[in-house]
Amino acid sequence: MRKNILILKGNIIYTKTPEEFTVCEHSYLVCRDGSVDGIYRTLPFRLGGNPIRDFGDCLIIPGLTDLHVHAPQYPLRGFGMDQELLDWLEANIFPEEARYEDMDYAGRAYGIFAENLKRSATTRACVFATVHRPATMKLMDLLEQTGLETFVGKVNMDRNCPGYICEETQESLDETEDWLRDVAGRNYQHTRPVLTPRFIPACSDALMEGLKKIQAESHLPVQSHLSENPQEAAWVAELCPDAEFYGDAYDRSGLFGGADCLTIMAHCVYSDDREIARMKEKGVFIAHCPESNMNLSSGIAPVRRYLDEGMRIGLGSDVAGGSTENLFRAMSFAVQASKMRWRLTDQTEAPLTAEEVFYMASKGGGAFFGKAGSFENGYDFDAVVLDDSRLKSPRPLDIRSRLERMIYLADEREIRAKFVKGQEISL
Amino acid sequence: MRKNILILKGNIIYTKTPEEFTVCEHSYLVCRDGSVDGIYRTLPFRLGGNPIRDFGDCLIIPGLTDLHVHAPQYPLRGFGMDQELLDWLEANIFPEEARYEDMDYAGRAYGIFAENLKRSATTRACVFATVHRPATMKLMDLLEQTGLETFVGKVNMDRNCPGYICEETQESLDETEDWLRDVAGRNYQHTRPVLTPRFIPACSDALMEGLKKIQAESHLPVQSHLSENPQEAAWVAELCPDAEFYGDAYDRSGLFGGADCLTIMAHCVYSDDREIARMKEKGVFIAHCPESNMNLSSGIAPVRRYLDEGMRIGLGSDVAGGSTENLFRAMSFAVQASKMRWRLTDQTEAPLTAEEVFYMASKGGGAFFGKAGSFENGYDFDAVVLDDSRLKSPRPLDIRSRLERMIYLADEREIRAKFVKGQEISL
Repeated sequence: MRKNILILKGNIIYTKTPEEFTVCEHSYLVCRDGSVDGIYRTLPFRLGGNPIRDFGDCLIIPGLTDLHVHAPQYPLRGFGMDQELLDWLEANIFPEEARYEDMDYAGRAYGIFAENLKRSATTRACVFATVHRPATMKLMDLLEQTGLETFVGKVNMDRNCPGYICEETQESLDETEDWLRDVAGRNYQHTRPVLTPRFIPACSDALMEGLKKIQAESHLPVQSHLSENPQEAAWVAELCPDAEFYGDAYDRSGLFGGADCLTIMAHCVYSDDREIARMKEKGVFIAHCPESNMNLSSGIAPVRRYLDEGMRIGLGSDVAGGSTENLFRAMSFAVQASKMRWRLTDQTEAPLTAEEVFYMASKGGGAFFGKAGSFENGYDFDAVVLDDSRLKSPRPLDIRSRLERMIYLADEREIRAKFVKGQEISL
Repeated sequence: MRKNILILKGNIIYTKTPEEFTVCEHSYLVCRDGSVDGIYRTLPFRLGGNPIRDFGDCLIIPGLTDLHVHAPQYPLRGFGMDQELLDWLEANIFPEEARYEDMDYAGRAYGIFAENLKRSATTRACVFATVHRPATMKLMDLLEQTGLETFVGKVNMDRNCPGYICEETQESLDETEDWLRDVAGRNYQHTRPVLTPRFIPACSDALMEGLKKIQAESHLPVQSHLSENPQEAAWVAELCPDAEFYGDAYDRSGLFGGADCLTIMAHCVYSDDREIARMKEKGVFIAHCPESNMNLSSGIAPVRRYLDEGMRIGLGSDVAGGSTENLFRAMSFAVQASKMRWRLTDQTEAPLTAEEVFYMASKGGGAFFGKAGSFENGYDFDAVVLDDSRLKSPRPLDIRSRLERMIYLADEREIRAKFVKGQEISL
């Protein structure tokens, strides 16, 4: 019994709601059988005798969830972003993704990605791979070894992309089924498959129908892109004249949320009222990727509205549209983008707060995995211990200010320890 | 003779103009008597025998100039930015600046600032202190010890600010003269004074006239703030009904550029045609501070226009409106802000390029100090050696891509060595 109990001590801070932080200074965070089992200022007598990991004046936060990241684009982080989405895909992204046919390259590149993700504050992630089945398995093997909880998708794309990376429709479906068989044979503990049609412009109706068949049998979740860029949205309107709006093109194939089809749509910068209503109705998760939306000149998503409407929303690094896997940066970019939207577009939409962006990065995105991203009782015990002493201060700061400072300035150097479902990750 | 020669070897990259990088792979950068004296792919015979510092595959860039940074606000970096300028000054900044009456606090806080500035890629900076003369001297002493080239200003402010930090007009002028005497007595090699009226709302006409008298006698440069925020600009219009525009209020006091009054104005987000024309005519330097302008919801400056008009412009971190002294971040924020301005405001203003933001951070801002921020012959030998091996790549990248990646991802960990006027800074 006792060996399943883990107790961390430090300054515990998390968000139950987007409105406020819950702060427990110098308190004990108890893990029982991988789940949160209470926070105490004074440790109850019945818990005495269990070993305590005392992290002194460190901050302890829930693990963060990256709802949208492209692992194969990691080598491109931080350069070549002076184009809009469609030109950038053609010039930079597709040529890079094509390299993953080479398993040596895939092993080297994915090894770097997995290592850096492990060292970050991220405990869970939804990851795009490429069309290549063997490389996708390599990525899953590497992520499994990190101990992080991830969904990984072999990408499907059968039209409107260069021949060197384009699949035949049937080939794409067959490879997906083979990939799912490969995955089933691996007995992963932490790594799960997610169906990953790239985006409507790259997926024929036949491909989407085939994927829906696989989804209906497997009940797998789905991830894709939605309403990221004006040119892209206009193209989808041309490609799918019968769709009422961009998201309806996914919904017509049955790959847009609903009870049996957990779905993440990345971006949602240009979603109109109908699309927003449908996402809400179907419980679609929005992956807000503010840095990517800046770097690719896409625009700024109406996140204030998404929060006000109580929609499911988390943050995505969207590497390599975003330059970093560091979700603290995604949080500060989300605040900054919302302030620019407020100033330049609509002064009825109040800027986002530190509480709101932290909520999105933790409990908001964590909800895709179930009960994750909070320290409420019964939640999976994902915890990150932050040592912020590198950022010297001439005077003591309160816990909330220290966390806000992390949102702007923390990187992997601040991660002193990290736990996923109660298991410590070796950093 | 020979002992005045220093030779660095590495991948040299810099900008002579905002349009393009000059790249010299695996080349020799020669310093003679503190100035750049040539770049060579093969070292000329006459230079043989001089010791060479071989930095292998590292990048060598010119030192960067931070044209606008508030040293006393450094303890506030990264939190408390959820207000606009005027409320933020009142709630956060003035109370923090008041602490610098306490020399113990000033020593601790400025010690942290000076140390971190030394470890950054910045070789030159224009720094605001507070109204306090002793603390300003402490800051100058500490900066002198770093070996960086800086201008530092004791702030003047005699109206519209809380009593605990507001000066009497004559007191402000007397303290300024005493401060300049103190500075003259110190024989600094690297640290110079700059007149620093905080901004028009906090400076009476009488104070500005008194400062002009000091400026006319001393020929000192001037730094202040201009057209940062709409509320602030409206307030200046009320306070100075005779001024044609915000900048004219400075110009009427003779503190707005011209042959004998080198001037930096930070922000210039809302400068109108007349203000822009006047800045151009008077050669006023613009300190573009993109992160601060996001964090305080100020807006996005029309930098494309400033560049097209050939105006003098550099980058400022504007800590603590900006969260970091890291000028690489200022560069990437400048690109990102310009993309949002393009998307949301004006699609005739093309986004900034990596070349342009690097130029602003190096030669653009460096021009305030004379010939600094470039590796053209005769420029002061300010050089920063970047070791980017922490950012692992599965394949070789070209020099330009490696530098662009630094703009998004570099921090002080990448700084392997740093030289100012040919003198190595101990990191």
